[in-house]
Amino acid sequence: MTLQQKIDVFSIMRPDLERVDQRVASAAELDFPVASAIVGEIVRAGGKRLRPLVLLLAGRAYEYSLNALVTAAAGVELLHTASLIHDDTVDRAAIRRGKPTLNSVMSSGGVILVGDYLFAQSAMLAAATNSPRVVGVFASTLGDICDGQLHEMFDGHRLDQTRDQYERRIYGKTASLFAGSTEMGAIIAKAPEEHIATLRQYGSHLGMAFQIVDDVLDLTEGTQDLGKPAGNDLLQGTVTLPTMIYASQLDETSPEMQRLKDVVEGENVGPELMDDIVTSIRRSGAIEESIASASSYVAKAKSAAEVVPDPETREMLFDVAEFALRRLK
Amino acid sequence: MTLQQKIDVFSIMRPDLERVDQRVASAAELDFPVASAIVGEIVRAGGKRLRPLVLLLAGRAYEYSLNALVTAAAGVELLHTASLIHDDTVDRAAIRRGKPTLNSVMSSGGVILVGDYLFAQSAMLAAATNSPRVVGVFASTLGDICDGQLHEMFDGHRLDQTRDQYERRIYGKTASLFAGSTEMGAIIAKAPEEHIATLRQYGSHLGMAFQIVDDVLDLTEGTQDLGKPAGNDLLQGTVTLPTMIYASQLDETSPEMQRLKDVVEGENVGPELMDDIVTSIRRSGAIEESIASASSYVAKAKSAAEVVPDPETREMLFDVAEFALRRLK
Repeated sequence: MTLQQKIDVFSIMRPDLERVDQRVASAAELDFPVASAIVGEIVRAGGKRLRPLVLLLAGRAYEYSLNALVTAAAGVELLHTASLIHDDTVDRAAIRRGKPTLNSVMSSGGVILVGDYLFAQSAMLAAATNSPRVVGVFASTLGDICDGQLHEMFDGHRLDQTRDQYERRIYGKTASLFAGSTEMGAIIAKAPEEHIATLRQYGSHLGMAFQIVDDVLDLTEGTQDLGKPAGNDLLQGTVTLPTMIYASQLDETSPEMQRLKDVVEGENVGPELMDDIVTSIRRSGAIEESIASASSYVAKAKSAAEVVPDPETREMLFDVAEFALRRLK
Repeated sequence: MTLQQKIDVFSIMRPDLERVDQRVASAAELDFPVASAIVGEIVRAGGKRLRPLVLLLAGRAYEYSLNALVTAAAGVELLHTASLIHDDTVDRAAIRRGKPTLNSVMSSGGVILVGDYLFAQSAMLAAATNSPRVVGVFASTLGDICDGQLHEMFDGHRLDQTRDQYERRIYGKTASLFAGSTEMGAIIAKAPEEHIATLRQYGSHLGMAFQIVDDVLDLTEGTQDLGKPAGNDLLQGTVTLPTMIYASQLDETSPEMQRLKDVVEGENVGPELMDDIVTSIRRSGAIEESIASASSYVAKAKSAAEVVPDPETREMLFDVAEFALRRLK
């Protein structure tokens, strides 16, 4: 058995992702120095570019024009950034990606407009692909994202929500953009219809896994790692999968259930009680059960990636899927 | 001389506009009863549907598919509605079109998301025209609107702004969507390139006239007529054309200039002093000069409408242009 070099998708794709970054940076420029500097920082701080990455990968095995893929990938990343900016305002978050959010230094009106401006830029990039089908996917993805965020806002605090409701919510909020990204990449590269549909599934499963892992990390890690306080979702009144699973184990009339309800309903329970709740969730087995659910989505994503004819691209799609779980260490 | 029946664009176009309204109403439906009811009310309260109207008119003289025109027109109206909803949050306005705004009954986070959702729906309608060119116009128009709103926020309070800066601002905020509407209508109806460009100009001039008249009405009318307090722009710190003209007549060190600066900088000067300032602006000739500027845009719009071959459509475009000034009574 020879020692096989593990494929590293992030190094292989770096040159293409750098082209995406350049497009994103120039589209995100604003006439207003202060706002432009902050938006530039948000864009530059922006993690691993997972959505552009899967868009590029989904197109890579077919007849692709790199320029069209890069344009759409920049559009997708900007849509994501615009959506984060508005979402931070909704959550009143002060930190994102370890940096101050735009709404920590600007009026909420300004943040709304800057977010809208970036939406407009992202829509222009989608339109620049000159494909009505890509634009259609782009627009309906934006609709799905808003639907997910609205459901999070209106129903996300319910402790008695069903697994289906949770999944619909995170599909909209996160998985829809991954699904849209791989679908757009495959459409641009003229993949066969069946491959387009299967690559969309890949993106969807991957996005579900990422969001579940995010929801787990929110409870298992502290400020340094995520740039947010631990248990932040719960403090915002958002019930995620681990909390739902934990709540399902509690007696409706127990004191544990009562204090959980208090937190979710926005009562200030103080940091000690909050720590207690987070510790109880961690000890309940809910984290492990959630990770199992994420793993099952990763397995489905990998199975969908089998459709891709080119072995190197397929391996890279596997690697991205595994990366979702690697973040758990 | 025979008594000629004056053409009434609003009655002639009512059936088509009703189709637009139906598309808008169904696209604006939300899963959430409270939000859906308020959005429905905002959409139904929505004035004269001027943007859909000019889009339909711009296509009417050529080879048009009514269905495609209605789709794009609904997209334009929803884009306008989404933009108003976000703008009301920026201005913290409590009343719009005589009804409570969404942000007077909902958290600003909710308003942002509802606005985003309507943007998404409007983009889906644009995409449904299946024309990359229409989508391109749509996306760049959204960019122009945001640019105008950002300039209003960052520079709109300057008393020493130039006429060019004011015009760029109102072009973005208002005229760009009128220009985009007529351009989209002409593109969908396969008008000759030269007609597309000229009809875009029609929309742009018309939009400039409408915004200047709005800025005048803000100073000359009270709550009942506009659903807003008189001098509302000034109270928000926004300097419009009549105020700019009035300020240009004042000595930099005069007490009148000082109190104007106070208002614009957000100091609460009280209703009596505010009334005084509004009265001074009205008496300065600035209103008449602003109306002259609006009239000149109306004349340019009418001259652009001459390009349209069909006499009835041309007359209706004239009528819409004159309507901009009729609002002044």
